[in-house]
Amino acid sequence: MSAIIMSGKLLADEMTIEMQNNVNKLKEEGIIPGLVVLLVGEDPASQTYVRNKEKRAKSLGFHSLVKRYPADISEEKLLNEVIRYNEDPSFHGILVQLPLPKQIDSDKILNAIDSVKDVDGFHPVNMGKLLIGQPDKIPCTPYGIMKLLERYEIEIEGKTAVVIGRSNIVGKPMAQLLMMKNATVTVAHSRTKNLAELARTADILVVAIGRGNFVTKEFIKPGAAVIDVGMNRDQNGKLIGDVKSDEVAEVAGYLTPVPKGVGPMTITMLLYQTIESAKKIAASSKKR
Amino acid sequence: MSAIIMSGKLLADEMTIEMQNNVNKLKEEGIIPGLVVLLVGEDPASQTYVRNKEKRAKSLGFHSLVKRYPADISEEKLLNEVIRYNEDPSFHGILVQLPLPKQIDSDKILNAIDSVKDVDGFHPVNMGKLLIGQPDKIPCTPYGIMKLLERYEIEIEGKTAVVIGRSNIVGKPMAQLLMMKNATVTVAHSRTKNLAELARTADILVVAIGRGNFVTKEFIKPGAAVIDVGMNRDQNGKLIGDVKSDEVAEVAGYLTPVPKGVGPMTITMLLYQTIESAKKIAASSKKR
Repeated sequence: MSAIIMSGKLLADEMTIEMQNNVNKLKEEGIIPGLVVLLVGEDPASQTYVRNKEKRAKSLGFHSLVKRYPADISEEKLLNEVIRYNEDPSFHGILVQLPLPKQIDSDKILNAIDSVKDVDGFHPVNMGKLLIGQPDKIPCTPYGIMKLLERYEIEIEGKTAVVIGRSNIVGKPMAQLLMMKNATVTVAHSRTKNLAELARTADILVVAIGRGNFVTKEFIKPGAAVIDVGMNRDQNGKLIGDVKSDEVAEVAGYLTPVPKGVGPMTITMLLYQTIESAKKIAASSKKR
Repeated sequence: MSAIIMSGKLLADEMTIEMQNNVNKLKEEGIIPGLVVLLVGEDPASQTYVRNKEKRAKSLGFHSLVKRYPADISEEKLLNEVIRYNEDPSFHGILVQLPLPKQIDSDKILNAIDSVKDVDGFHPVNMGKLLIGQPDKIPCTPYGIMKLLERYEIEIEGKTAVVIGRSNIVGKPMAQLLMMKNATVTVAHSRTKNLAELARTADILVVAIGRGNFVTKEFIKPGAAVIDVGMNRDQNGKLIGDVKSDEVAEVAGYLTPVPKGVGPMTITMLLYQTIESAKKIAASSKKR
């Protein structure tokens, strides 16, 4: 048996058509979805991410702006920039590219973003709404994974899910989303004992630990859906996931590839949430 | 073997001495911790809870006020009352007794409480801070359970924990707190299959499902710490927990009783957080 490959690339393309229709409708009402990305310093990985986001946003016809700041910008100045874009009605989404330089408290900056424009879903209010089961903006990677599971008709209700990794941007929100769909969810992490044994109970296994080829076939229940969030480089500089895909594909029922699995979904959900935000802001200004 | 009984009553008494010392210190600085409880309508259970809270708050020397409103109060009026107490510097904690009558959107009211004064810990911002691992105000029942585990020196790090029940006020925040202490946590619920088998993997089992005597000895790993959050009445009107305590005590290593287990800790943590809130507000006003 060989696993069905869950293509994030294909689903992202599919969703892009739908989003394009939504953007066109908004434009007919005179609204152009606006996304501003605040980029501090010259980190090469950040530059690449931001370039991709900008390209995708522009191709959808967004009002897209990348604001660049020197690496030595003060916390206060950056905070004022966030506040400025909170108040600018031409932007419906604000994204602060992480990591930020050391002199800046990232939490302070992220918390200053108006939660309505927090298209990354990292603001405490949005995390809180997720925890109490009333999600609004959702962290993009786990949100994209839910869309993938749905598209490939993976049953979640009553199933056993194991999430390996407990980061704020993937593991913890992922667990909440799966729980909301009535899975029984365990969050495993570096202190978890008998990890392979635990993972083998999972009908749905999400791996987000940032260790290349860590998950081998011993971790996999036959037929399970395996989601690989990892983005690592091997010794030859090749992009690899957290899952040893060749052998896992022989046991799993479904598997996301790296690249073209979870990655394209993350940026898609960012744009999706910006459009949703534009719709919402437009609807609330009509009411006034 | 018979389980060690974890007395919430004893720990609550112990903590009350410590809290009394803290209140005395605050009074020397001219600060009296203030707690206002907003009580709508005539629900008898709510009346009892509120009376207990008031009694405990007064005995600690709090500035304690119970504001009663008729059952037909409008949402707008109640909202204005919340805002009024947000702005009243003599109160450091605001508690809206639930349930509220049907004409009122509880979420709207709870979200209006200043998160600094949200001593119940239910505000989305406080839930969000908990989810991202930077807790401030914490829902009182799971917070009290953490204090009990700590007091009885139950090891959490690296252990397997199962939480049965996924409510916003107990199950979900409980899972976050146990995860922060490096347990591997599974949240189980009504849709979970093979519940007894899953529960039997738990070194720490927290039961909060609201079904009397539901958890039998088949659910228990020998030596486990079992926390019973249930408060149910049997056919004779006797208060019973979710755990069938007589038989479970023969297998478990630790067990909380009902009553005098989790119950006294919940109200203790409410008062504890009000004192913490008073300290914090006092410290921040000094800085100005």
